[in-house]
Amino acid sequence: VKREIGHVSEERAVAECVRGVVEGDRRLLAKAITLVESMRREDAPLREELLARLLPRTGCAVRVGITGTPGVGKSTFIEALGLFLVGRGERVSVLAVDPSSPVSGGSILGDKTRMEQLAQHPEAFIRPSPSGGSLGGVANRTREALLVCEAAGFGVALVETVGIGQSEIVVSSMVDSFCVLLQPGAGDALQGMKKGVLELADVLAVNKADGEQKAAAERARDEYARALGLFSPGAAVWTPRVLAVSAREKVGIDAFWETLLAHREALLGSGELENKRRRQARAWMWSLIEQGLQESFREHREVKSRIAELERAVEEQRLTPAAAAQTLLELFRK
Amino acid sequence: VKREIGHVSEERAVAECVRGVVEGDRRLLAKAITLVESMRREDAPLREELLARLLPRTGCAVRVGITGTPGVGKSTFIEALGLFLVGRGERVSVLAVDPSSPVSGGSILGDKTRMEQLAQHPEAFIRPSPSGGSLGGVANRTREALLVCEAAGFGVALVETVGIGQSEIVVSSMVDSFCVLLQPGAGDALQGMKKGVLELADVLAVNKADGEQKAAAERARDEYARALGLFSPGAAVWTPRVLAVSAREKVGIDAFWETLLAHREALLGSGELENKRRRQARAWMWSLIEQGLQESFREHREVKSRIAELERAVEEQRLTPAAAAQTLLELFRK
Repeated sequence: VKREIGHVSEERAVAECVRGVVEGDRRLLAKAITLVESMRREDAPLREELLARLLPRTGCAVRVGITGTPGVGKSTFIEALGLFLVGRGERVSVLAVDPSSPVSGGSILGDKTRMEQLAQHPEAFIRPSPSGGSLGGVANRTREALLVCEAAGFGVALVETVGIGQSEIVVSSMVDSFCVLLQPGAGDALQGMKKGVLELADVLAVNKADGEQKAAAERARDEYARALGLFSPGAAVWTPRVLAVSAREKVGIDAFWETLLAHREALLGSGELENKRRRQARAWMWSLIEQGLQESFREHREVKSRIAELERAVEEQRLTPAAAAQTLLELFRK
Repeated sequence: VKREIGHVSEERAVAECVRGVVEGDRRLLAKAITLVESMRREDAPLREELLARLLPRTGCAVRVGITGTPGVGKSTFIEALGLFLVGRGERVSVLAVDPSSPVSGGSILGDKTRMEQLAQHPEAFIRPSPSGGSLGGVANRTREALLVCEAAGFGVALVETVGIGQSEIVVSSMVDSFCVLLQPGAGDALQGMKKGVLELADVLAVNKADGEQKAAAERARDEYARALGLFSPGAAVWTPRVLAVSAREKVGIDAFWETLLAHREALLGSGELENKRRRQARAWMWSLIEQGLQESFREHREVKSRIAELERAVEEQRLTPAAAAQTLLELFRK
């Protein structure tokens, strides 16, 4: 009897969330995201049920990832972009991936003073992603939170990432367009940024093109444009573009958006948008499987007891990586 | 009795290979590499035994990876470099990774006319890597072949890769220095090259800096140097360098080698060489474990029967990647 009551109330909770998300009830939207973000095993059936019901309503948003090193003005830029978009009648959601904060609530967007204006706008929704320990966990939930936002009718889904770890790669694998914000002082602008991030970018924006730094930002823009030309293999659907913007003075925000739309057009026109999303979804499935397999492996009692010892032997060249891998795999398979 | 005879003869075969490798017997060196490259399950004990015995003799070579798109003159360059090195009294081995050729013997170096002069030199050893189906397989064996070459006393171990797939990343994870050869026509030089390869490079060389293309190659060198400056985060032990060389006219080969040695010095001086090799070995072990787990997973009867269907559902947005991964992992764990 108890289970049946539980079942009925779960049914009701999911139905309520679905209704709330679809009707734009912000409290229920927040609740739905909390549910899909939940790492608790007992929430899994509800989470899956909720996502299954929302899934048919997803896929319509413009998904944009934005990264940049600390101090580049990411929040100011995203707020300016968000306000520009709501001003044009768009509904905008902002999710943030912050793998560096180990506890829920301690996310980079936890600071309430950030994006104050945008946060108060009725057509915007800002949400930090809780950290679930592993990056995979965090970003996994971000991806599903993004689906909930889409189902809630946000036409533009922005995903912010701090740009100093692996999260950029993960975020770039869940969006249609990936953008990198840069410092006006080209060259030392990438301090701390992971190698390869620039090459993920579809659109780059050199921020702080205002006041004394305007000229420097414009020079940096030209240099990056030239460098990217060298780094981009030809015959692609899209060649990355670089802009100079000022988030503070709200200059270049419109051009930035136009460039994103041009990127989207290029993807759509070539059929690449659909391909990209299919590829991303499939790759995501496999990366979750990989994580799951790794977990089972590392938690396996006998494997666990020997990992440290074999890793050391490999590092000290007493054992080949192949022999160590073989030993551990055999323990696991038994 | 039969098993004992087999055991004794196996013992003898391994001892013979070890002796041959150490004493510089080319026929036995080739045989030893064939053994470590073998994908046959029944060869595993011998392979492991051979590697275990050779392992204490490894670690002394300068390990260099060289990549570049087809047509850039890789073989000519590697031959010029190899001849330069043997001229200086070095012993040089060249291994090639070619994931594109599906059958053993069909490797890029199978063509006997390539590197003819170097191939005939008594202090050089050239060996194509057989393809074992998966890239992981191929490169795995290349890594172990490299250890055999080191044990055989080759002071410079070059690893060539075609530069149009994932093999560059794999090769860069087994060498101390990774080099990219470029076309003199900057910009369209990267056609077909995987994004991110340039950022793996420690040393870049613009080839064909001769005749009519000399000026273009030098311009390209300057442009790449400038671009790399933008793309490199500061505060690193080493900033990638770019050179213009002519493999055909053997110009700049010495400077190339000096640059490689400077890179090595920077790594050695900072303790980074040892760290790098430890990291590489550990990462290699984990990537082999990952491959092994993936294989077990994909070969699991019930998983196998449902992969295609679930992949399709995920691609068509009928199912979230998380739900599909969960379903497959549950089948596997049962």
